[in-house]
Amino acid sequence: MKELEPSISSRTVRVAKLRDFTRRAFQSTGLSLADAETGADVLVTTDAWGVFTHGTKSLAGYLRRLQAGGLRSSGRPTVVAEGPSWAMMDGGSALGMVTSTSAMECAVAKAKSTGIAYVGVRNSCHFGAAGYYAWLAARQGLIGITFANDRPSVTAPGARGAMLGSNPIAYAVPAGRHRPILLDIATSTVAGGKVAAARARGERIPPDWLVDADGRPTTDPADFYKGGALAPMAGHKGYGFALLAEVLAGALTGAALRFAVGSWIESDPALATGHGAAFLAIDPGMGSPASDFPRRMDLLIDEIHSAPKAAGATRIYVPGEREWEHHEQAIARGIDFPPDVLESLDGAARLSGQDLKTLFD
Amino acid sequence: MKELEPSISSRTVRVAKLRDFTRRAFQSTGLSLADAETGADVLVTTDAWGVFTHGTKSLAGYLRRLQAGGLRSSGRPTVVAEGPSWAMMDGGSALGMVTSTSAMECAVAKAKSTGIAYVGVRNSCHFGAAGYYAWLAARQGLIGITFANDRPSVTAPGARGAMLGSNPIAYAVPAGRHRPILLDIATSTVAGGKVAAARARGERIPPDWLVDADGRPTTDPADFYKGGALAPMAGHKGYGFALLAEVLAGALTGAALRFAVGSWIESDPALATGHGAAFLAIDPGMGSPASDFPRRMDLLIDEIHSAPKAAGATRIYVPGEREWEHHEQAIARGIDFPPDVLESLDGAARLSGQDLKTLFD
Repeated sequence: MKELEPSISSRTVRVAKLRDFTRRAFQSTGLSLADAETGADVLVTTDAWGVFTHGTKSLAGYLRRLQAGGLRSSGRPTVVAEGPSWAMMDGGSALGMVTSTSAMECAVAKAKSTGIAYVGVRNSCHFGAAGYYAWLAARQGLIGITFANDRPSVTAPGARGAMLGSNPIAYAVPAGRHRPILLDIATSTVAGGKVAAARARGERIPPDWLVDADGRPTTDPADFYKGGALAPMAGHKGYGFALLAEVLAGALTGAALRFAVGSWIESDPALATGHGAAFLAIDPGMGSPASDFPRRMDLLIDEIHSAPKAAGATRIYVPGEREWEHHEQAIARGIDFPPDVLESLDGAARLSGQDLKTLFD
Repeated sequence: MKELEPSISSRTVRVAKLRDFTRRAFQSTGLSLADAETGADVLVTTDAWGVFTHGTKSLAGYLRRLQAGGLRSSGRPTVVAEGPSWAMMDGGSALGMVTSTSAMECAVAKAKSTGIAYVGVRNSCHFGAAGYYAWLAARQGLIGITFANDRPSVTAPGARGAMLGSNPIAYAVPAGRHRPILLDIATSTVAGGKVAAARARGERIPPDWLVDADGRPTTDPADFYKGGALAPMAGHKGYGFALLAEVLAGALTGAALRFAVGSWIESDPALATGHGAAFLAIDPGMGSPASDFPRRMDLLIDEIHSAPKAAGATRIYVPGEREWEHHEQAIARGIDFPPDVLESLDGAARLSGQDLKTLFD
């Protein structure tokens, strides 16, 4: 391959190497091979999609919690109660990616039998990209939907300070000829990282990104660090969706709620964070010939692609399409990480007794 | 009561009278008493919530379609396929409110047995407020979620003109001491009615409400009538949620998709519109003592209520709280309709051989 791809620089990371590195890092903390592979698949797939904020950039943070005991390397998610179309799982402070993968697989198995299933999770932790688990369902031909709660960082209409987490919602829908539709969003207008980046560049931000310590809209990113909070996407609508996630992932599961959820980055790494999550799977084969839904999805996607374009636009994307194109490139040519990810990977290398250079051999 | 409430003007409509008027109007087109009562309950409850855009203001429009045959007064929703946790219904071009009520009741019954259920609907029509059906589940102690598709009026990133409907998403969650949480939103930034109102007042609109005929953001509401389209809420996020509704309510159900959906207002009233909808019910009693979920919801709502307030704010509302307060007032003192609703009710009176004055006796 190297002869065919001379453009690959020394900073480009092969997906297979990244996967080995990540698996070994998890194993270094006592995770089983299977769990380490699960964790690595979540993070590396996310990087391959180009979603660097939720991929291996977080590996060092997970390792710290695994080493300190807040995440238990021998933790096993267990089903504590279940019915025909639902289950409640206790994550046992296992790696969030291990618990969440197990939960969506459980939802898929039940949905194949009854048409739809809900699996709720408590005693979990930050689980990477919510979209990964939605896609786990879609790659088996089912519609997947993921909700999670998190420690509050987002305000609500009328509130001063943070009310709810940036509680993510993700869904994936399988098609026929086309790759699955995949949407993965935070219910805040933007992620906190965008505010930090604007501050670092000395720029003002749009007035719908942030409120200041009094709960008033602000264009100064520094207000985030002086008692401010992120703004919910689309005002009361984003607040409402974040609350739905808090209900399905938290109130319904017995997980920690609001400020009872620990910060997976800032809280004592020896303590569990208590995150909750919810996983829905819907089998589109119910009630129609198996081929009908994929065909209808292809038609819908074709219609969207061929719709008239806005001035200056050449394509209309369906959600996830950019990520799948990035994924293809990543598999073929490797991943070019920005400096912040490489810096974090260097931390993960040191924490797991590996040499970062092996990633670029 | 009149002695106790001397402030009631002749324009105030008692809820019981509005319900009778609406039921008789539906019966005048051949609907059975039961179906007419169902339709009246949806529209009058919506008015009692103060959501006048989706209440009896639409009655005249439904009557026109019932009289012309596009809605069939003798139509019956039927289950065409089902499993333990799902059903697919054909609305048979019955009144959308009749089909949707039947569908959510079916979802509730199945969810009580298996924990969660999905019911999809095709050959339906505009069904009023999506939140009503979510609340049908919540008033029986279940979490309800509603999705619907509609004829496109909302653009997508990169598109010129409308891509998807303002596809509503609504959910309701029962609590203990507190009234159910209830969110009912369009996936556009604002409804078309707000653009029309701004145009009537000669005002500019914010740049995230509308795109012009070239797909560019505009502050001129008149652009809506010159090939423009509504903007999705929060950009690609609202587009993604609208697409999820199109999938669950349309692609999965066999309903009409995108421009194959007729406009319930503008299309030939003799023709079916082919709308689709989806209804989810989740039984929070699964896996925990029956009292646990209501208690956790009360705690969550109490925490939100008592959180610090923004400068100038005196309360923090949970979704639906304003609607429930309006509802209490409506039951106690009647509903004060704005002129546009009264004008539309006058049209409904004429179409059904009633006298509008009887509403104010």
